[in-house]
Amino acid sequence: MKPFIHEDFLLQSETAKHLFHDHAKNLPIIDYHCHLVPKMVADDHKFRSITELWLGGDHYKWRGMRANGVPEKYITGDASDWEKFQKWAETVPYTLRNPLYHWTHLELKTCFGIEKTLNPDTAREIYDQCNEMLAKPEFSARNLMRHYNVEAVCTTDDPVDSLEYHIATRESGFEIKVLPTWRPDKAMGVENPTAYRQYIEQLSQVSGVSISSFNDLIDALQVRHDFFEQQGCRLSDHGLEKFYAEDYTDAEIASIFNKVYGGHELTELEIDKFRSAMMIEFGRMDAESDWAQQFHFGPIRNNNTKMFKLIGPDTGFDSMTDTLTAPSMGKYLDRLNSMGKLAKTIVYNLNPCFNEMVATMVANFQDDSVPGKMQFGAGWWFLDQKDGMEKQMNTLSLQGLLSRFVGMLTDSRSFVSYPRHEYFRRIMCNLIARDIESGEIPVSEMKRVEQMVEDISYYNAKNYFKF
Amino acid sequence: MKPFIHEDFLLQSETAKHLFHDHAKNLPIIDYHCHLVPKMVADDHKFRSITELWLGGDHYKWRGMRANGVPEKYITGDASDWEKFQKWAETVPYTLRNPLYHWTHLELKTCFGIEKTLNPDTAREIYDQCNEMLAKPEFSARNLMRHYNVEAVCTTDDPVDSLEYHIATRESGFEIKVLPTWRPDKAMGVENPTAYRQYIEQLSQVSGVSISSFNDLIDALQVRHDFFEQQGCRLSDHGLEKFYAEDYTDAEIASIFNKVYGGHELTELEIDKFRSAMMIEFGRMDAESDWAQQFHFGPIRNNNTKMFKLIGPDTGFDSMTDTLTAPSMGKYLDRLNSMGKLAKTIVYNLNPCFNEMVATMVANFQDDSVPGKMQFGAGWWFLDQKDGMEKQMNTLSLQGLLSRFVGMLTDSRSFVSYPRHEYFRRIMCNLIARDIESGEIPVSEMKRVEQMVEDISYYNAKNYFKF
Amino acid sequence: MKPFIHEDFLLQSETAKHLFHDHAKNLPIIDYHCHLVPKMVADDHKFRSITELWLGGDHYKWRGMRANGVPEKYITGDASDWEKFQKWAETVPYTLRNPLYHWTHLELKTCFGIEKTLNPDTAREIYDQCNEMLAKPEFSARNLMRHYNVEAVCTTDDPVDSLEYHIATRESGFEIKVLPTWRPDKAMGVENPTAYRQYIEQLSQVSGVSISSFNDLIDALQVRHDFFEQQGCRLSDHGLEKFYAEDYTDAEIASIFNKVYGGHELTELEIDKFRSAMMIEFGRMDAESDWAQQFHFGPIRNNNTKMFKLIGPDTGFDSMTDTLTAPSMGKYLDRLNSMGKLAKTIVYNLNPCFNEMVATMVANFQDDSVPGKMQFGAGWWFLDQKDGMEKQMNTLSLQGLLSRFVGMLTDSRSFVSYPRHEYFRRIMCNLIARDIESGEIPVSEMKRVEQMVEDISYYNAKNYFKF
Repeated sequence: MKPFIHEDFLLQSETAKHLFHDHAKNLPIIDYHCHLVPKMVADDHKFRSITELWLGGDHYKWRGMRANGVPEKYITGDASDWEKFQKWAETVPYTLRNPLYHWTHLELKTCFGIEKTLNPDTAREIYDQCNEMLAKPEFSARNLMRHYNVEAVCTTDDPVDSLEYHIATRESGFEIKVLPTWRPDKAMGVENPTAYRQYIEQLSQVSGVSISSFNDLIDALQVRHDFFEQQGCRLSDHGLEKFYAEDYTDAEIASIFNKVYGGHELTELEIDKFRSAMMIEFGRMDAESDWAQQFHFGPIRNNNTKMFKLIGPDTGFDSMTDTLTAPSMGKYLDRLNSMGKLAKTIVYNLNPCFNEMVATMVANFQDDSVPGKMQFGAGWWFLDQKDGMEKQMNTLSLQGLLSRFVGMLTDSRSFVSYPRHEYFRRIMCNLIARDIESGEIPVSEMKRVEQMVEDISYYNAKNYFKF
Repeated sequence: MKPFIHEDFLLQSETAKHLFHDHAKNLPIIDYHCHLVPKMVADDHKFRSITELWLGGDHYKWRGMRANGVPEKYITGDASDWEKFQKWAETVPYTLRNPLYHWTHLELKTCFGIEKTLNPDTAREIYDQCNEMLAKPEFSARNLMRHYNVEAVCTTDDPVDSLEYHIATRESGFEIKVLPTWRPDKAMGVENPTAYRQYIEQLSQVSGVSISSFNDLIDALQVRHDFFEQQGCRLSDHGLEKFYAEDYTDAEIASIFNKVYGGHELTELEIDKFRSAMMIEFGRMDAESDWAQQFHFGPIRNNNTKMFKLIGPDTGFDSMTDTLTAPSMGKYLDRLNSMGKLAKTIVYNLNPCFNEMVATMVANFQDDSVPGKMQFGAGWWFLDQKDGMEKQMNTLSLQGLLSRFVGMLTDSRSFVSYPRHEYFRRIMCNLIARDIESGEIPVSEMKRVEQMVEDISYYNAKNYFKF
Repeated sequence: MKPFIHEDFLLQSETAKHLFHDHAKNLPIIDYHCHLVPKMVADDHKFRSITELWLGGDHYKWRGMRANGVPEKYITGDASDWEKFQKWAETVPYTLRNPLYHWTHLELKTCFGIEKTLNPDTAREIYDQCNEMLAKPEFSARNLMRHYNVEAVCTTDDPVDSLEYHIATRESGFEIKVLPTWRPDKAMGVENPTAYRQYIEQLSQVSGVSISSFNDLIDALQVRHDFFEQQGCRLSDHGLEKFYAEDYTDAEIASIFNKVYGGHELTELEIDKFRSAMMIEFGRMDAESDWAQQFHFGPIRNNNTKMFKLIGPDTGFDSMTDTLTAPSMGKYLDRLNSMGKLAKTIVYNLNPCFNEMVATMVANFQDDSVPGKMQFGAGWWFLDQKDGMEKQMNTLSLQGLLSRFVGMLTDSRSFVSYPRHEYFRRIMCNLIARDIESGEIPVSEMKRVEQMVEDISYYNAKNYFKF
């Protein structure tokens, strides 16, 4: 019997197979947005078990297990590595039609060469085999990245981060680029004056700028922005529930800063105004450095207070929200554009009902500075699966130029998540091939289509980000 | 020529046929949410005509006729049974691609063995044949339920209902379970102080609890909740335009109750607070009884005031609204969860643009009390058709575990609506088979897929509700 | 090699081919909503070049070029016709999967008989060939309309327009009906008191009604409404960001009018109230004339202030918004319905996440005055492509009666946009045929299906609008 993950997995036509095998498969990976722990690259981390590698921080798997009624002890609790793996193996057969089923078997195949499907019967054998292999040097963090033909990755970093591991990695001569991304969410976190003050003090220390006003704050951030740029940073990222575009005056912002810095709670409107001002400053810095700015909007986080108290944030208790944001997104981008300070921009939405709105809104700010300057970003988080990717690519195709799409990213903290690029490329090739098969793209344009596949897989990102 | 509704209707592959015929078709029906009139079961009602059976209360058909320009006289007016049927037969050919076309012919086939399509030419013959059959004892309410292999149904009942017909049905020895569902919408109806007072007095009488405060109200409802439980009730249902999750204090709620009970209009905020408090109490009661709670949210009702004045509510003048509710849904579920009082929960949305949001939100509260504790409910009302069902199952598959889905319900007041379970099972088998055919589910997992089909058709509901 | 645009383009089954070739292709075109410039018909305009014809006013193409990084000089700037065409030809290969690719080649084929695909290699040849043909009398504005078998078009006109070109066209004996549409958006434009006052003065002059109160305003508009009707107008159109349905009193509206007419800025609530009142008056006028009223809602316009200042409105800087409007849409339609003044109505949404809401909302007001009185309108603007059309038709099919759909319109200012009717008919035939192929529509209903195809292509519009 043909293995589940075989050469032509997801490729439903000869055209799809041609496009994937001859024009996508072998191109390097530019993973321009991920959450790898830089220290693990610097140290060339070895994994003690497949449980550490797979279940140590993957909230997708955790949600799957919870939906299957697995007790938390076996998910984030103190059960042994084997017990946790066993519970995951019990859950896998229940994940049919969920992307977890595909990801799991793609990773087993591409990382370990395992073709069996994971279930309670195969769990022990697979566990032992993986652990044996992980003990070998070929399965260190860096070697996994080499194995997957990675050319560059961009991690996610706070302005106050020392970037010491990025520097150490670079200085070690590691041939794969491991670059930082500017993610200044904490500099917007004025909803908690105490935590915010601590953050400002940290920022002051690391930047060497004494901060006692909003202008000082911006100066300190600019110092760090310059430092990130020196370390090869080429893009920023902003995690937002919605876009901020309140009207404000400089005097208001100065006074809001003083209020929160003085330990006082802000009103909701003050928070919005402050964030609106910060977003303009961040946009300006990125434009001046010719970075790309990324906006990830639309989650509602930490919905389960009970579990938040037990195990903290980013543990699988987030979901999509339905907050409306078209007018403020438009207003924000327009302000930067009117200032002549609109950087290359990628907007990712979480709730797919915003796909068309985002695709049409960003397109209002395209210009001749670079083709595809304004990007409707790849399927993100809950949308990072076949249906979500196809919808994103279809909407982008219909409302913009798919040809100019900078393509896929893993958004992952795992060193075996690179098959998601393969997964994306298979889906993309299959989708485009479908149009050729049905006559919606003429066969005479095959050369152009082949180039488009290569561009979306690799060259567009390479030319857009210029790492 | 093969009849329209044939053995393999909607089954587009050999795998689909296998799954349906060998693993879905013959399983009993658990119709855990419907609007059957309990008295009709108790009395074993005989139908005077196909018009009574079909057109007596079906607002889907009424809307179809109105869209086709049929005068109201022939819809809900005083035309004869034959005249109304004739107008419906004229409309049917215009319903191609609407689910009415499929339902109509599925019902003709499975109930009456009629394979002709309904149109003006066949109307008289079909009318006469159906009426002749309906006159026979095999076509009584109970015998129709037996004919369709129904194991249990849950009706929809107000806390003040005596449940006398449920009791009479059970005591008559009827082998099919006819259980009540707790639907306390009227206990939330504080927007009309006069009607609310009358309702409270009714509740006081039937519960034997004298009510002069909010606490008394809750005590009286608890008495009725206990009574429903004694009568076999295992689930509640709430019809909501949106979720209520305002902040409130006990003192505020006590005073709001006194105000409305005293005949005074409440402000919108007071109404929201009161409903928020009621929802918490209802959730607590359900959790303490280990019931499942159902939330149906998102309609905007009685939009056509002219027709409302003429023929009242629930007559086909409702539609989807676009009210946002993610934060309040999350807050409500989180409150109950933090109290340790979150019952098994099913959330149904009406507007499909909320599918993904609901699927991801409920999943934040999964735990190990029961697999699939939190359910993204089946396609509801306007979504109760092939496209709607496929979208619901696809979203559930991608954002949760389809394997744990409790499956289909009719939501109907008709004794011939059971083919909708068959319709659902055909669509579900066809959808899953498609993934096997395309290689997205490995053939090696066929046993698991067969079990999944059986579970979604029957066993999941059986194990989840424990009637 | 078969040309890209061949006889069976988009027709994926024998049934689809039959339906299109035998029942759709040859029917005349009723383009009941477009933006043709009436003077160009009156003058029987000749086009100086394919650049004028294609790129002179088409913001779809402009957006495509901007997304491809083309400088504005070659889009709306002072570059030569050939330079602009060249830049467009460079962009075309990058538009694969965007509707522009299909439209471009459909137009080349049906207008000029050109089967080559447009790209930098073919640009010069195609440019020269088109220009040569455009110089011939057969390619005048009127002859293009004849070539495409147009029976009637409805332009878009302001109440103050003289309609002189409509009159001249009619009096010239042109056999194709060129009718005005009542588009009174400017009469709602009270956000700018100065411009509004100017507009009122213009309206006063053209109507002969001296305007110094709200009632005068309505009288003047009624005079123009009557005039439009005399000129053959049978429908109105309203471009709205959202529906307006505030409560108001006559006294309030009288006073709001006086305020804005006196040059004072209105509050947001006053603007909403005023527009709500105007919408009721417009609805009443249309009902009394038995016109059809069209509502196009949901864009957010002129997002790019920088470009707006440079080149003005309607230049390709608009997008979808996400404003919620279900309750106000329902309330507005209900008010008119309760007054007995609800005209035939077509509602078009821009953001597709509102499809289902709109389809179910309009259906609440169907009645027996005409079948399909309330229409969920064809895919509009950004949705005017295969995916958007299929979604609109699927939603209409599921929530209403596709059989009663009045079908396609171009919404275009171009004399070569008529192939969009062909595009629509191909897509519609293919979609319906798919249901026959899969057994979801019985083959025995082929006669009904053929009639349905003809109705949606032509007869429904003919019977509905009664031009």
